Amino acid sequence: MEETRTLARYVAGATLEAVPPPVRHEAIRSILNWVGCGVGGCRHEAIERALAALKPFSGAQQASILGRPEQTDILNAALLNGMSSHVLDFDDTHLKTIIHPAGPVASGLLALAEYRRCTGVEFLHAFILGVEVECRIGNAVYPAHYEIGWHITGTAGVFGAAAACGKILGLNEQQMTWALGIAGTQSSGFREMFGTMCKPFHPGRAAQNGLASALLAEQGFTSSERVVEAPRGFAHVMSTERKFAEITGGLGNSFEISLNTYKPFACGIVIHPAIDGCLQLREEFGLSGEEIERIHLRVAPLVLELTGKRTPQVGLEGKFSVYHSVAAAILYGAAGEKEYSDSAVKNPKVIALRDRVNASVDASIRDDEAYVSIHLKDGKILQKHVAHAIGSLHKPMTDKDLEAKFQRLTSDILTREESRRLMDLCWNLESSEDVASLARATVPGHPALSAAR
Amino acid sequence: MEETRTLARYVAGATLEAVPPPVRHEAIRSILNWVGCGVGGCRHEAIERALAALKPFSGAQQASILGRPEQTDILNAALLNGMSSHVLDFDDTHLKTIIHPAGPVASGLLALAEYRRCTGVEFLHAFILGVEVECRIGNAVYPAHYEIGWHITGTAGVFGAAAACGKILGLNEQQMTWALGIAGTQSSGFREMFGTMCKPFHPGRAAQNGLASALLAEQGFTSSERVVEAPRGFAHVMSTERKFAEITGGLGNSFEISLNTYKPFACGIVIHPAIDGCLQLREEFGLSGEEIERIHLRVAPLVLELTGKRTPQVGLEGKFSVYHSVAAAILYGAAGEKEYSDSAVKNPKVIALRDRVNASVDASIRDDEAYVSIHLKDGKILQKHVAHAIGSLHKPMTDKDLEAKFQRLTSDILTREESRRLMDLCWNLESSEDVASLARATVPGHPALSAAR
Repeated sequence: MEETRTLARYVAGATLEAVPPPVRHEAIRSILNWVGCGVGGCRHEAIERALAALKPFSGAQQASILGRPEQTDILNAALLNGMSSHVLDFDDTHLKTIIHPAGPVASGLLALAEYRRCTGVEFLHAFILGVEVECRIGNAVYPAHYEIGWHITGTAGVFGAAAACGKILGLNEQQMTWALGIAGTQSSGFREMFGTMCKPFHPGRAAQNGLASALLAEQGFTSSERVVEAPRGFAHVMSTERKFAEITGGLGNSFEISLNTYKPFACGIVIHPAIDGCLQLREEFGLSGEEIERIHLRVAPLVLELTGKRTPQVGLEGKFSVYHSVAAAILYGAAGEKEYSDSAVKNPKVIALRDRVNASVDASIRDDEAYVSIHLKDGKILQKHVAHAIGSLHKPMTDKDLEAKFQRLTSDILTREESRRLMDLCWNLESSEDVASLARATVPGHPALSAAR
Repeated sequence: MEETRTLARYVAGATLEAVPPPVRHEAIRSILNWVGCGVGGCRHEAIERALAALKPFSGAQQASILGRPEQTDILNAALLNGMSSHVLDFDDTHLKTIIHPAGPVASGLLALAEYRRCTGVEFLHAFILGVEVECRIGNAVYPAHYEIGWHITGTAGVFGAAAACGKILGLNEQQMTWALGIAGTQSSGFREMFGTMCKPFHPGRAAQNGLASALLAEQGFTSSERVVEAPRGFAHVMSTERKFAEITGGLGNSFEISLNTYKPFACGIVIHPAIDGCLQLREEFGLSGEEIERIHLRVAPLVLELTGKRTPQVGLEGKFSVYHSVAAAILYGAAGEKEYSDSAVKNPKVIALRDRVNASVDASIRDDEAYVSIHLKDGKILQKHVAHAIGSLHKPMTDKDLEAKFQRLTSDILTREESRRLMDLCWNLESSEDVASLARATVPGHPALSAAR
């Protein structure tokens, strides 16, 4: 009956020694993937426009914008970095809730780390705790909360950002309780915005608002002390069901970051099994697309609900089209950012194949599973059952996979050597004396990236 | 089926000539009342703490904080002024929805007016349009939306702030549609926060986020074009019922600002009929409180739901206690800010009388109605039926009443002459060449307040 305070007490009192090394390693993988996505997305039009709109009102140059020369105050940096890390839809996924955990938490945290000096160990721990709060609150309300129409990465993320930033600020239990309250009452973001610039805006605002909540609570700014569980609090107002045991059960013994996964493909995770199956068949049979009569997919119900766009017009919409995704994967042999460009979506060959893709849903199929049937013009039928898509918990990306993804993501921004050195900074996070250096080292040409280490 | 676009088209294209003079006058009354509340609340602890937390990250000194010497960037000014105008719970009320309309709209607008020069006429029109959007969206979802637990001043206010600021920025229909979308996906604020510093934070954030939405939309930042009406938009996600005809019916012919009312007492509007009745009986019979055995109230159901706190501990909680309110009104002969101080709530005489107040609810009693029975120790029973409380639509505060309230509210901040001159600036808004001067003239000692005009 006091879930909020229980979370606050835990976060305020937790020590890193209680976190097992494999959990820490998963957290570092999450941070590396987040940095790669943020740098990769930093020149997206959504970031350019947000920066143009907000820069005139920014405070002092306190914090870095991932991959960019500009600096802003820490609150605007949290917003922009949260946006760029999600704008390619290529970030991490807590599959139990479809939360993209790192964006809100790391974006608030890294900005703060440039203002209030913290070590890599402190940063890592705060990150783990932020993800813990975010995902546990998500667990309590998922899936009902999501089905209502809430973009859970924004709505739950703001709690995580507040907890993580509050930990770095050294908030006590009472202040941490307020920080969660101030954060929760800003919880927002509609799934209706998917396919527009507001989608990445959600984790950005969650990062910024969570950071602001921690700063306000530090000054004694008060809130309800029961924001999660109160009859008029988050779980009741924004969900039709709530499992409070998910918030407090095993707190401190299990770690949600261990359940984090990383996308091999630059689109909604629900399409990944179908893409994986198509890419496997393409590889096995040397398909070029020309020989294909039609493609039939049997997929989980969420696939068509989230990504059922038949005729996407621009790159961003392509990410919400399972039809475009598998057509592009067959034709290009990949499903990275370039396969979701405007030109890929408008490519007549892609459109022609896309129009020959059909999909049916089957409630017995899991979210990381798909059945692919490719009917060739010569009458042959190629079939593939993907039991667990690449990138899922059962078939995780390796550290090497993550490095390859990082290199591809950052290749337009950083040199190969800079990218390599930036990854090393991530892997060696626990030995960092001052995490501000990591933020600054995302900017092309930065001395930390060119100097021998 | 396209309520969002209809609103956007109307706001983008509307001209002030279509607004009748009585509507403009009501808007000016609203602005005057808002300035008085903001100046009166500007030194509240919630403002001090928010300013201490956020000032280090503020941008250039672009905009005034009502009544204070500090300046911040326009986004932080919008936040702080939205907060100070609501922090005393003494602001205006659109009774149909319990929205406090001016806070979110005027706070975003006045901050913007210090950055993008606008005349009093432009300001007034944008304000009227912002209130129109805010209240029409509120009308569509009230009361279900409020009953779920949403603080409607924040949730609907953000739309109004975006519309008003967008009008000053000269957004076209498409940009205005995006501005509403960006605003709507930030709609937030729980009633759970009532009694804490987060309550005034809601209209502050609504002002700030609405202003930011307009600035983003100006740069082409995209959102869903159906934020209000889409199946996963505001009205469906955040309400269980929706009356879309309230949004578009009579648009441009009727004006919601005409329905605005102003509080004579510094507490939740639902307590006003009971206070009014007690103050009338106090006056008529010269009551001092000593002679009272007990007080019985018969009130509308919302009274106990919102203000049923039996034993408030601090001033802020007193505003959510009908018991404290009528006890203090009888003993002090008023229900202004001082009657809701910590010391008033802890005064043993108030507590003793408060404990002799009872209230019962009756569903047949309207929100602006109350029956008061005061049982004297000598056996007499004094009764008063308040059909419409002072400050309600049926018994509005006069311009003179509003001036007296303004003077009392600002008396700790401004001299009597400064207060008088500031009111004159409000009344003469339509002749202002540059509304920035109004913002600056709220600061004590400002030349505009001391110079002969």
